[in-house]
Amino acid sequence: MIQKGLAGVVVAESAISQVDGESGECIYRGKRVRELTDFTFEEVAFFLLHGTFPSDEEKAIVMNLFKQQRILPEEIDAMITKLPAEIDLMSVLRTCISAMGEKEASQEEAMKLTATMPTIIARRLRFIEGKDAIEPRTDLNHVENYVYMLTGEMPTHVVVQALTTYMILTMEHGMNASTFTARVIASTEADYISVITGAIGAMKGPLHGGAPTGVLEMLRAVKTDEEIEPFIEKKLRNGEKLMGFGHRVYKTKDPRAQALKGVLERFGQSNDTMNRAVQFERLATKMLATYKPGRDLYVNVEFYAAALMDALALDERLFTPTFTMSRIVGWSAHIMEQRNDNRIYRPSHRYTGEMPAQSV
Amino acid sequence: MIQKGLAGVVVAESAISQVDGESGECIYRGKRVRELTDFTFEEVAFFLLHGTFPSDEEKAIVMNLFKQQRILPEEIDAMITKLPAEIDLMSVLRTCISAMGEKEASQEEAMKLTATMPTIIARRLRFIEGKDAIEPRTDLNHVENYVYMLTGEMPTHVVVQALTTYMILTMEHGMNASTFTARVIASTEADYISVITGAIGAMKGPLHGGAPTGVLEMLRAVKTDEEIEPFIEKKLRNGEKLMGFGHRVYKTKDPRAQALKGVLERFGQSNDTMNRAVQFERLATKMLATYKPGRDLYVNVEFYAAALMDALALDERLFTPTFTMSRIVGWSAHIMEQRNDNRIYRPSHRYTGEMPAQSV
Repeated sequence: MIQKGLAGVVVAESAISQVDGESGECIYRGKRVRELTDFTFEEVAFFLLHGTFPSDEEKAIVMNLFKQQRILPEEIDAMITKLPAEIDLMSVLRTCISAMGEKEASQEEAMKLTATMPTIIARRLRFIEGKDAIEPRTDLNHVENYVYMLTGEMPTHVVVQALTTYMILTMEHGMNASTFTARVIASTEADYISVITGAIGAMKGPLHGGAPTGVLEMLRAVKTDEEIEPFIEKKLRNGEKLMGFGHRVYKTKDPRAQALKGVLERFGQSNDTMNRAVQFERLATKMLATYKPGRDLYVNVEFYAAALMDALALDERLFTPTFTMSRIVGWSAHIMEQRNDNRIYRPSHRYTGEMPAQSV
Repeated sequence: MIQKGLAGVVVAESAISQVDGESGECIYRGKRVRELTDFTFEEVAFFLLHGTFPSDEEKAIVMNLFKQQRILPEEIDAMITKLPAEIDLMSVLRTCISAMGEKEASQEEAMKLTATMPTIIARRLRFIEGKDAIEPRTDLNHVENYVYMLTGEMPTHVVVQALTTYMILTMEHGMNASTFTARVIASTEADYISVITGAIGAMKGPLHGGAPTGVLEMLRAVKTDEEIEPFIEKKLRNGEKLMGFGHRVYKTKDPRAQALKGVLERFGQSNDTMNRAVQFERLATKMLATYKPGRDLYVNVEFYAAALMDALALDERLFTPTFTMSRIVGWSAHIMEQRNDNRIYRPSHRYTGEMPAQSV
């Protein structure tokens, strides 16, 4: 029996994260993710990579490392604006990282590479929008500086908190397609850059890295709260899918969606998009239970991630690159774990083609 | 039970190739590879991608397409010499291809990308050797032009035949790590360039794409035929591995090694490296049966590939890139097959980390 897409097939042991689809819990190295969202991005990255939180001394070193690395090597910086204008952000990110040559995977190398990503993304977006590049600031943390390099303005506390929460929640999620890609490539003993380049490619696939477009189209189609119910009803009667609902692993509410909703509600009091999203989720959950009973269709992280990007007025094209900026931490932890107890991935297939005529 | 490295796990159906490790046969779409080595590289690539051999009309189109595409777009051409000199050939190849942006997989796109690879590799090697680039010629076929761009000289018929044979034999080989990487990335619906970039990364891993160094060191350590037997005996007594012998799948002689040996013997009459390699294999096979009974250690394709590269006086650094130039055809066939009946790869893992304290 072939398990298509290896669904349900256990391919490795891993101590990095646990996704419990039944109870709706996501755990990073023994801690519930929803209890990690008050830390900085840098602290949780350190935790996922090392398995312990940084001491005060380590924290200072790590914050500093992130700050230094956001200034790109000259040839990478030049590449951002030399690549043809029609090339998308993810391809640019992949190419710039690929151009860094060979590196060996380590916690330090992982943090360094993670730190370079916002600069590449922000510079490229501003370049294709015809805007001047904004130099990174070394007095800001990773997420603050990312928003600053995009907008040229210091983001408010609540924006930083919301985006940090999103990025912490999406750092790691078990054997998803890009992480599995990373483990397969790492199993050949390929260098760190080769592995990350491949994982970025997998993340770029619409079935994995996704796009907020579908959710945003829905949220924008309803102008008032009163329009939500008839809108959903029409969609469900027509047999259409509700974007941002349902998840292959979670059979209950995606805990990441829950955590994200929590932080968004705190700052969304005066934000129409956020309030509408919360209403939309409430009604959609009720109606999905009626129209598709037994299907366990609950809100997933993409729904609130799209609402967040919209509330923050971030360009839609930043959705997958921002997701990549956080998931690289999970990939890196998996690469090191794979290499610690490695065997090359070399599965089999069932041949369904012709056989040659009798041996000559 | 976790099958480490997915050994023996059937992950997909495929009509592209069959590797029979017991009988030592390798089949491409119903044909034995050893019966395909008198065709051109272009013809066998077409056959693997389409499932049929090109008609005369198609053949003319394909030969022409390969010729046109070996002239690179300007920005890719510039990148070859702008990437820092310390970056290795495989990283340069990966970066130049990544810079091509998004493309959708098709037979035509696959042949186009395959056609660009020799130019990237040859230009880069000459650049790091401080030599002028040699413009591709459009009156030569794919393999002839590759050697010409490396050396500036028109290769002899026997050299072209030997290298073509090698490249046809290594075009495709079931669910090896890079091909599996390609299928996993393709399953996210990522574009063709994303997939190939990832597969190149996997090929770069020493456990997969390999390097001729180990075999060449052995062959160079023996100066005369008389030295072979004591050399092997000493290695085996010391418990050392013989590079180029043994294969995860083949439990008998690797048919690709056999086919390659055949063509090499034809032109190796006056070539010391080749003659020594043949002697070495004969003695090593006999002695491995004595020293490691029941282990089924026979010559693999890497042994004769290394001997071939040496006999052709090709730079060692070309070993993995040349392998990649042929394997891209197999990857491409698998990408299209995967997308024709797709489900995203999303396996599971067994969590071995801590669990959080009781829910709060």
